[in-house]
Amino acid sequence: MKKKRGKGGAVEVRFPPILSGMKRGPAVIIPKDIGLVIAHTGLGKKSKVLEAGAGSGFATIILGNIAKSVVSYERNPQFFEIASKNVEKAGLTNVKLKNADILEGIKEKELDLILLDMPDSEKVVGAARESLVDGGFLAGFLPNIEQAKEFFLECNEAGFLETFMLEAIVREYDVREYGVRPKHVGLMHTAYLVFARK
Amino acid sequence: MKKKRGKGGAVEVRFPPILSGMKRGPAVIIPKDIGLVIAHTGLGKKSKVLEAGAGSGFATIILGNIAKSVVSYERNPQFFEIASKNVEKAGLTNVKLKNADILEGIKEKELDLILLDMPDSEKVVGAARESLVDGGFLAGFLPNIEQAKEFFLECNEAGFLETFMLEAIVREYDVREYGVRPKHVGLMHTAYLVFARK
Amino acid sequence: MKKKRGKGGAVEVRFPPILSGMKRGPAVIIPKDIGLVIAHTGLGKKSKVLEAGAGSGFATIILGNIAKSVVSYERNPQFFEIASKNVEKAGLTNVKLKNADILEGIKEKELDLILLDMPDSEKVVGAARESLVDGGFLAGFLPNIEQAKEFFLECNEAGFLETFMLEAIVREYDVREYGVRPKHVGLMHTAYLVFARK
Amino acid sequence: MKKKRGKGGAVEVRFPPILSGMKRGPAVIIPKDIGLVIAHTGLGKKSKVLEAGAGSGFATIILGNIAKSVVSYERNPQFFEIASKNVEKAGLTNVKLKNADILEGIKEKELDLILLDMPDSEKVVGAARESLVDGGFLAGFLPNIEQAKEFFLECNEAGFLETFMLEAIVREYDVREYGVRPKHVGLMHTAYLVFARK
Repeated sequence: MKKKRGKGGAVEVRFPPILSGMKRGPAVIIPKDIGLVIAHTGLGKKSKVLEAGAGSGFATIILGNIAKSVVSYERNPQFFEIASKNVEKAGLTNVKLKNADILEGIKEKELDLILLDMPDSEKVVGAARESLVDGGFLAGFLPNIEQAKEFFLECNEAGFLETFMLEAIVREYDVREYGVRPKHVGLMHTAYLVFARK
Repeated sequence: MKKKRGKGGAVEVRFPPILSGMKRGPAVIIPKDIGLVIAHTGLGKKSKVLEAGAGSGFATIILGNIAKSVVSYERNPQFFEIASKNVEKAGLTNVKLKNADILEGIKEKELDLILLDMPDSEKVVGAARESLVDGGFLAGFLPNIEQAKEFFLECNEAGFLETFMLEAIVREYDVREYGVRPKHVGLMHTAYLVFARK
Repeated sequence: MKKKRGKGGAVEVRFPPILSGMKRGPAVIIPKDIGLVIAHTGLGKKSKVLEAGAGSGFATIILGNIAKSVVSYERNPQFFEIASKNVEKAGLTNVKLKNADILEGIKEKELDLILLDMPDSEKVVGAARESLVDGGFLAGFLPNIEQAKEFFLECNEAGFLETFMLEAIVREYDVREYGVRPKHVGLMHTAYLVFARK
Repeated sequence: MKKKRGKGGAVEVRFPPILSGMKRGPAVIIPKDIGLVIAHTGLGKKSKVLEAGAGSGFATIILGNIAKSVVSYERNPQFFEIASKNVEKAGLTNVKLKNADILEGIKEKELDLILLDMPDSEKVVGAARESLVDGGFLAGFLPNIEQAKEFFLECNEAGFLETFMLEAIVREYDVREYGVRPKHVGLMHTAYLVFARK
């Protein structure tokens, strides 16, 4: 079980063993958030997933470990390299990384889940909807509330059946024989999560 | 996307489409919590899972949709019947429900994840550890802090490599063109989640 | 100790004994929020306070019980009447209610705290600053994030020394010999609190 | 507005101007928690308060600024000195600090509020109740859940009319024209607050 610095910098975040030893470049999606995506979309071993951007590939690996296939776009060459090495290290053969910008178009079709963790993700909403199967989900990670709102409303306008927005605060506890309490300091915020179902 | 009454009774909880139309008997594990389990253990399509008790089978189905196989113990005949019907409805053929009490022993071996959501779960810790692969996880859902502490300390004594405890507060937002804010009322608590890694 | 329905409708909220038996009209500021205002501004018995609008007069009474004087504007005649009766019932002689609209101007000067819980409160920022002593605080209760942001930025532009924004989530616990845990359902949101110091 | 290191060490906590320039020795009660005490007990300028221990005197000063009188016990000579200097600096003449151990008895009577932030506070419950007026409050700050439970149950047994337990999570927001979000890292826990009304 690896603990690494989270988005907050000063706080250690737990990651699952499959991410053990992975190199960390850009900020990563942490378990509390990727867990919400998996559980609320019903992701499974038959699911076809698309992600953008890959970042350090942490979410890519967690998703790749579950889904039938994952395609991940990453336009930044350095991040693409970090993510590629991490995915290779994880031994996942069902994950395909593309050094490409999703804003220029989505080639994949019949997807069950599209996960966006990138600037300007509201510009991908229409194309994302086209690439989803009926009942498929688009999920967005938005650090600021304004982005989250814009993405949410864009999903509504694009004709998704249902859109909802969640936010998770997770506390870890110190458990000792003499006393139990939450750790004093922790991650208060990572991102707002917007889900849209086609 | 189904919304059902959560553990709190007065609050609607969102569930993934794979649980749509499922009958609800005893209290169920909700997405925020099962998501933490999946993401922190790195559950994947090669994973072998054991669960007790099945309850209404909601977590069973989410896990069965991801894992290679799920065996679920449920000693209560009525709950066993509800869970069986729900699993059948979900069309999962890799899930095996047993109308049995896990306190009387665990037959399965080489498990990657054992999930306990039941009274007296601290009594299963030793047997659970025996049934896990090295690196496998035992996860417990404990409504009260005393149970959580007892389970946690029992895991420590049983020789698990690492034990940690988490709690998730998830808020849903009302997103309107004229204004965004969290919904006023929501689920403040479901359970403490204890993770132990062999 | 009175428990009344909170802003969420379905959840009981605790109020201090000084509000016992008070009539409840419009939504009220609840203890977790008024407590933040008192503690972060350092309100005391020498403080001169102005509030708008009075609403049901709940915050008015808590503030009046502490401060040297409280003037409270309420433009709605029905709310003005409810607040007046509640203040009278509380026996506070240092509280003056005015059936007036603060948007039309603030007569009071040398105030230590101005508390705004009303629509269009961003329009009062300039006049409020004029009416504060140096070191005095303007505090706003804003249900939606857009209002909170607008109010915050307006305070920055108006030349306040420092502006900050807080939000409180308070959980109540069920404490029983056999088990302790937070109550399942509770208030997830009331308002964002913006503080500006002159 | 002063920002100081909170109980968590790594996180800056805001304090009101009346605490500006105060020396910080032992861990202090922060505004979110003292605010809950003030708002839930209805503390006012006629209130007589007793506190133990004084610690750095931060809560002492906030309470002294509001109440008619505050007596504060502090058995540790070094803390007593720090608190004394801070109270003097604040210019409060209605606050009396005693270098004494409250476990050896409470001399004061007819108190409206007794605030305990100390080890073994459950041993003071009976004597505290004796020293309160009818309707007065005993409030305890308990870092660990076991202490909080013990204190709570002790209050119930001692014949208090009503006992309840709260916990506050407060988030500060970064508010910028281009984007609003909670600060990434913050204080997840300080203490459980138990209130008992005579």
